[in-house]
Amino acid sequence: MNPKFVYLFSEGNGAMRELLGGKGANLAEMTRLRMPVPQGFTITTDACTAYYAKGKTICPEIEQEVYDYIGKLEAITEKTFGGLDNPLLVSVRSGAVYSMPGMMDTILNLGLNDQVVEAFAAATSNPRFAYDSYRRLIQMYGDVVMEVPKKQFDALIDKMKEERGVTEDSELNAEDLKTLTSQFLDTYRTALGEDFPQDPKRQLMGAIAAVFRSWYNPRAVAYRRMHGLSAASGTAVTIQSMVFGNMGDDSGTGVVFSRNPSSGGHRLYGEFLINAQGEDVVAGIRTPQPIEELMELMPDIYDQLFLIGSKLERHYRDLQDMEFTVERGKLYMLQTRNGKRTAQAALKIAVDLVTEWLCTKDEALLKIDANQLEALLHPQFDPKALAATAPICHGLAASPGAACGGIYFTADDCKVASAKGPVILVRQDTSPEDIEGMSVSRGILTARGGMTSHAAVVARGMGICCISGCAELQIDEDAKTLTIGEHVLKEGDFLSLDGSTGRIFIGQIKTVPAATGGYFSTIMEWSDEVRTLGIRANADNPQDSATARRFGAEGIGLARTEHMFFDPDRLPVVQEMILSKTAEQRERALTKLLPMQRADFEKLFTTMEGLPVTIRLLDPPLHEFLPTQEEDIRLVAGQLEMDYAELQASIADLHEVNPMMGHRGCRVSITYPEIATMQTRAIIEAAIHVKQTRGYDIVPEIMVPLIGDVAELIYVKQIITEAADAVIAEADIELRYQVGTMIELPRAALTADELARESEFFSFGTNDLTQMTFGLSRDDAARFLETYYEKRIFQSDPFACLDKTGVGKLVEIAVASGKTARPDLKLGVCGEHGADPCSVAFFHRLKLDYVSCSPYRIPIARLAAAQAAIRERMGVVIENAQAL
Amino acid sequence: MNPKFVYLFSEGNGAMRELLGGKGANLAEMTRLRMPVPQGFTITTDACTAYYAKGKTICPEIEQEVYDYIGKLEAITEKTFGGLDNPLLVSVRSGAVYSMPGMMDTILNLGLNDQVVEAFAAATSNPRFAYDSYRRLIQMYGDVVMEVPKKQFDALIDKMKEERGVTEDSELNAEDLKTLTSQFLDTYRTALGEDFPQDPKRQLMGAIAAVFRSWYNPRAVAYRRMHGLSAASGTAVTIQSMVFGNMGDDSGTGVVFSRNPSSGGHRLYGEFLINAQGEDVVAGIRTPQPIEELMELMPDIYDQLFLIGSKLERHYRDLQDMEFTVERGKLYMLQTRNGKRTAQAALKIAVDLVTEWLCTKDEALLKIDANQLEALLHPQFDPKALAATAPICHGLAASPGAACGGIYFTADDCKVASAKGPVILVRQDTSPEDIEGMSVSRGILTARGGMTSHAAVVARGMGICCISGCAELQIDEDAKTLTIGEHVLKEGDFLSLDGSTGRIFIGQIKTVPAATGGYFSTIMEWSDEVRTLGIRANADNPQDSATARRFGAEGIGLARTEHMFFDPDRLPVVQEMILSKTAEQRERALTKLLPMQRADFEKLFTTMEGLPVTIRLLDPPLHEFLPTQEEDIRLVAGQLEMDYAELQASIADLHEVNPMMGHRGCRVSITYPEIATMQTRAIIEAAIHVKQTRGYDIVPEIMVPLIGDVAELIYVKQIITEAADAVIAEADIELRYQVGTMIELPRAALTADELARESEFFSFGTNDLTQMTFGLSRDDAARFLETYYEKRIFQSDPFACLDKTGVGKLVEIAVASGKTARPDLKLGVCGEHGADPCSVAFFHRLKLDYVSCSPYRIPIARLAAAQAAIRERMGVVIENAQAL
Repeated sequence: MNPKFVYLFSEGNGAMRELLGGKGANLAEMTRLRMPVPQGFTITTDACTAYYAKGKTICPEIEQEVYDYIGKLEAITEKTFGGLDNPLLVSVRSGAVYSMPGMMDTILNLGLNDQVVEAFAAATSNPRFAYDSYRRLIQMYGDVVMEVPKKQFDALIDKMKEERGVTEDSELNAEDLKTLTSQFLDTYRTALGEDFPQDPKRQLMGAIAAVFRSWYNPRAVAYRRMHGLSAASGTAVTIQSMVFGNMGDDSGTGVVFSRNPSSGGHRLYGEFLINAQGEDVVAGIRTPQPIEELMELMPDIYDQLFLIGSKLERHYRDLQDMEFTVERGKLYMLQTRNGKRTAQAALKIAVDLVTEWLCTKDEALLKIDANQLEALLHPQFDPKALAATAPICHGLAASPGAACGGIYFTADDCKVASAKGPVILVRQDTSPEDIEGMSVSRGILTARGGMTSHAAVVARGMGICCISGCAELQIDEDAKTLTIGEHVLKEGDFLSLDGSTGRIFIGQIKTVPAATGGYFSTIMEWSDEVRTLGIRANADNPQDSATARRFGAEGIGLARTEHMFFDPDRLPVVQEMILSKTAEQRERALTKLLPMQRADFEKLFTTMEGLPVTIRLLDPPLHEFLPTQEEDIRLVAGQLEMDYAELQASIADLHEVNPMMGHRGCRVSITYPEIATMQTRAIIEAAIHVKQTRGYDIVPEIMVPLIGDVAELIYVKQIITEAADAVIAEADIELRYQVGTMIELPRAALTADELARESEFFSFGTNDLTQMTFGLSRDDAARFLETYYEKRIFQSDPFACLDKTGVGKLVEIAVASGKTARPDLKLGVCGEHGADPCSVAFFHRLKLDYVSCSPYRIPIARLAAAQAAIRERMGVVIENAQAL
Repeated sequence: MNPKFVYLFSEGNGAMRELLGGKGANLAEMTRLRMPVPQGFTITTDACTAYYAKGKTICPEIEQEVYDYIGKLEAITEKTFGGLDNPLLVSVRSGAVYSMPGMMDTILNLGLNDQVVEAFAAATSNPRFAYDSYRRLIQMYGDVVMEVPKKQFDALIDKMKEERGVTEDSELNAEDLKTLTSQFLDTYRTALGEDFPQDPKRQLMGAIAAVFRSWYNPRAVAYRRMHGLSAASGTAVTIQSMVFGNMGDDSGTGVVFSRNPSSGGHRLYGEFLINAQGEDVVAGIRTPQPIEELMELMPDIYDQLFLIGSKLERHYRDLQDMEFTVERGKLYMLQTRNGKRTAQAALKIAVDLVTEWLCTKDEALLKIDANQLEALLHPQFDPKALAATAPICHGLAASPGAACGGIYFTADDCKVASAKGPVILVRQDTSPEDIEGMSVSRGILTARGGMTSHAAVVARGMGICCISGCAELQIDEDAKTLTIGEHVLKEGDFLSLDGSTGRIFIGQIKTVPAATGGYFSTIMEWSDEVRTLGIRANADNPQDSATARRFGAEGIGLARTEHMFFDPDRLPVVQEMILSKTAEQRERALTKLLPMQRADFEKLFTTMEGLPVTIRLLDPPLHEFLPTQEEDIRLVAGQLEMDYAELQASIADLHEVNPMMGHRGCRVSITYPEIATMQTRAIIEAAIHVKQTRGYDIVPEIMVPLIGDVAELIYVKQIITEAADAVIAEADIELRYQVGTMIELPRAALTADELARESEFFSFGTNDLTQMTFGLSRDDAARFLETYYEKRIFQSDPFACLDKTGVGKLVEIAVASGKTARPDLKLGVCGEHGADPCSVAFFHRLKLDYVSCSPYRIPIARLAAAQAAIRERMGVVIENAQAL
């Protein structure tokens, strides 16, 4: 038996999303629920796959099946496709498995031609309406299927309106529209060198192919990438018999939500147009009326809509977003789907649905897009002020929130200026030297670097808005100017950054503070009830730790000791240590650093009140702590009483071709064991002090970075245990501590059994693991990743959403062999993927103990972990991110 | 039952190497063969392992077992250890599983103390001899066990000789030696604050522990690393009753080989000293006599030695290196082992042993150290001239052979100077821009970079001597001076480089040309008869290809197209292509490059006469083709008629933080498909041309580098097939071609099944795969790898000897899943490991189709492949490199 590629609405149901797409499945379901749906049929997503498999052609078997179903539809509607008697007109729409609003193209009124339009005019006794429908078909077909620019048609309408001295399309009469139709046909012929197809079947197949093609149009590709969706599923095509909202004042069309998608408020929300066809509402040619006014104009229709909305909401157990048309006083439902909503509304609706007994807590949690939560935790632009302003360019939405301030080009200038007003740091890219300037800025804007660049990572950690990798910026640091296109901004000029979308605005836009209300807390509580994955924070200082605890962190999964080294009081001592010529000199500098580090750790332990804290030994290459600019080198040379040339030579000597794979991580501990000894002393002394003074039962977790071979771990572990045991013996106190390793090199994952024998815990550093597994430097990848997305080679950013095929396989290998070697091995993740919902689901499935992420992303991780647990219980495996 | 840690010689045999070490096993075997061996016992390698497992202590059980065996030895020799009547003296020597000559420490005459020496003097009626033996014990024990500098003792001997007015030790009389003994005891006491141990048992245990400790002395560690040996096996300790060659003119000691280890000539070869103890021969205090003179002095002994040598050679089926002592006219054999030999001798001996029916061809092939072969193929220093000169410093032996020439600091200067005489290029490190200068140099010397740095790889490919990573060099390029320690050399001054050992000499040392005689050909023929692994060459031009074929390559496994781009005629066109602002500009530059590349490939195909040729598409980051120095940038700007600032900005824009993981490999083909199209056209057009004009059946293999995801491969493959099929269709000819991929990223190995479905062959790029798997940049690793060796974290250089645990696991995964997806998948290796014997054995075991290496290493690969096949047939698995 041949596979079936086409289904009548009456043959399908709501569970057939995979095959019929969301739109087709919902139309089938509404048909099943005996709602007033214009009948039709859906061509399956399999047909889309077949289209691409056959080199972008629709094979004859599928074409024939479509014609057969046109026959069935003719029987149901008692109309004839292309017939002169009672012509059947249809719409052709795309419908993917997940909702991609506005992404796909639609064509209405198919079936009209030069003859049929006459018959249609006669049958409807409405020539104006008939020609209006025909000219719309020519215009949409020309635009969507044949790529004739829409504006060529629009210009003709404008010209006609001018000639007739009218302002609204609706003021043109039948004759005008007939003339326009003729002009449209000419335009089509001139642009394409062929006539508009008169054969309705040719129209139909052309439209179906255009829908399939649109699956890979740039907007669709970009949308999927932004939302981490796979392209594999393809789109279905829905063919529906037309109903007309443009047949007079007893007709109309509109869009309505069963609740308010912006606030979550519990009443119908939407808008409509009298005497209009679907696309008029969207196109904005006329201003639609709020749905409340329908109560006056068509009270029966309003009541029907309200009842249908309630029924669908109960049926789907979620907010519904519906399209309807009224044709000569009769209501038709054209579509329903679960509605998109703001983060605020998502929380309220989820809680309300449970209160109203419409769904369970588990179901409610699954309705919220975890990624949306972060937006709630940062200041936002006032929506009204924002609506009035257009962005001048876009960058990567690297750290969410809104920021407005004067621009400054160096960290030092930011520090000075921040005393007087809000500042934004603008740099090619940031480096650890900029930390202090970053911390005083409202926002950070960089020309280079991706979602995991230094600027992005640090900003997220600090909860500061950041837009990175904005290639259009031309920064002249010497002249202190920023050029964006034709705009030239000077130091101090105001910019506004929307870190949640990556949009950049000139001037000041009003911001409103974050507000996490009661709904937020309720959802977090419910999440914590069901999740099994622990949630920790990546936090290096007491402020971040406090934020992390406020958002529900159950410990620190990653405290990066190097961030403490960049403090301006310490940097000179760190530099002294690095530039030491002998172990004695180095010891001397380390002796100065010891009390500083100890104080840091005491604060961390105190803030965390006995919760677990994982501290990573020094990780970055040492040259990151040294200056690069001549004047800075002179300054440091002065501080350290060194010769300028000598210092310059030392810095040059530390230069590396590929620092990411250079002298860093445990390699530094191996060449300079005294650094690891000092850090261990500081950690253990701090733990003892806080234990003694506060009584917390602290078990510090000391983590060794960049391990590739068990011999490295054995060596560094011995340094750690010797130092730790000595301190514990001196203090004459009981203190347990753990030594563990990062798994961030492929070789670490491949030899995890050996490492597990020497390690009490693993923490997957999925950022570096992704870099090494792909051989892809995240500092450099931005240059060609855009091309990769355009050419459909990558579907998503592997640094944002964990690559399960490759990197994930290494994680699986490491978990399995690590657990075999040490059954009680503690397993966590401390890369950027720790708060990516799709990655969290993967980590949950591997039964890791916890994920660790930046403080502001903890709520996302909590909800994502809950969703993963719920889905697992339901037996649902989510391989890719998925929309609601 | 407790494990047995001690074996009498009469309890063991020659097969017990693992347990008794080479020395212990051979002494047991000679005992079994009833040869005159002073009896004794061996403490097993397991005891060494136990010593380290117990935190460097000998446990009481083993100590007791040693004492028990002393008792057994007393019974056999009818002497008493520490006894005054007929004292038993013993030697203590190390003996590892594989031979490590000169690496381990030895102590003689144990058992003497202040009382025993008197008794010994009386018993031997030779007080001079007794005190000479005692002072030697104190000196050796002090030096080896207690680390009292040997020179403190030597100074006392020199002083005594001066006082007595004599020049030779042997001229000192009994009284002198008694006085010296007393001085030695004082020196010992002063240096250590304690007396020389009078208890022979304490002496014995101290000496045993010293042997165990010496397993990790720096020389031993360095030797193992150099030879790729594992430290896991540990050393045995052999205790043997002393015989004395220093009891008068009827006594003596010597070393003798059963054949000439330098030439392979078939007669006894060696030297001896009359009236001397073992270490005198080695120490060079007296000049030993050639063994021929023993025929005159002790004809019976000579005959006995000759017979024993023949018998042992027959028994062991190999050249024997023997130590003997004559005590009062009686011959004792102290040791035998398979002898080290030069590459020349190794070949002759192997062939001779087969001719003499002493062993089979298979056995003969196993006796040759494959790594030695390369030395035969390059010019060498005249051994006599070399012996007269001391090196001033050492670097890494990056490419073998000898070179002598005037030094120049830039590639351009080399080009000019090479017209007048031999030149050596001296650089911090080389880059692709230096290629032309390198090709005209006799040798290359760099301060930075490891065994797989650019300089090393290119030099090996060209067969040019190279020493890399010599940190002692201070190069001042502006002043054109090279400072090494106190030596300051100017441009044009002569240096001599020994690329086979890494030694650097000031001035000119005579070189002799390479000579590959008939034995070489015979061994290569025998190798080809048994090996199953194919051998290809990494060759980019006709010269390299011709060399490769001369050395027996069966094809080209890697032709790097980028090397062709650095030709001075082409570089400007390549730069024009890179700096193009539009696809049209780029196409224009590529149109100029097309005929150049096609001509290159025509030459390659012509030279290879139909053998398979794998051509890799452009791999390095584009910025490698652009200048970095201001004056060069100005020059290029002029050539390309560009603004200097504009060019500088373009170059800065192409800068990458981690170029190894940046925009290179297939990523370049994806962003600029027109480059891949041009290269494919050039390859296919060349193949068609050579097929038509020469009639070779060419099937070009086009290889895509740096694939990490199957989508990349699909994309680039489509570019290739479109371009190739178009050219083939134009030419209207039948031509098959293959498209395959490098496996050089961990993700490629992990997704090999997906890749194999799109790929007709895999070539493992083990250099990059090692870099990514370890997260270790070979350009930067030299800085800390030294420390890694010192601290025993790495046993060998993973870029020289494939890491089987991690990188090897990825190769295994890729082979298994690749073969499953495509059973006829062709598998090769084109990394530096392709000619490392230990790695070749691994590749043989995985049943790869071929390895590919630089032309001068092909003979190594051929022999190593044969050895792997033979060992497999014998059921021997070699995990680590092994000595003969």
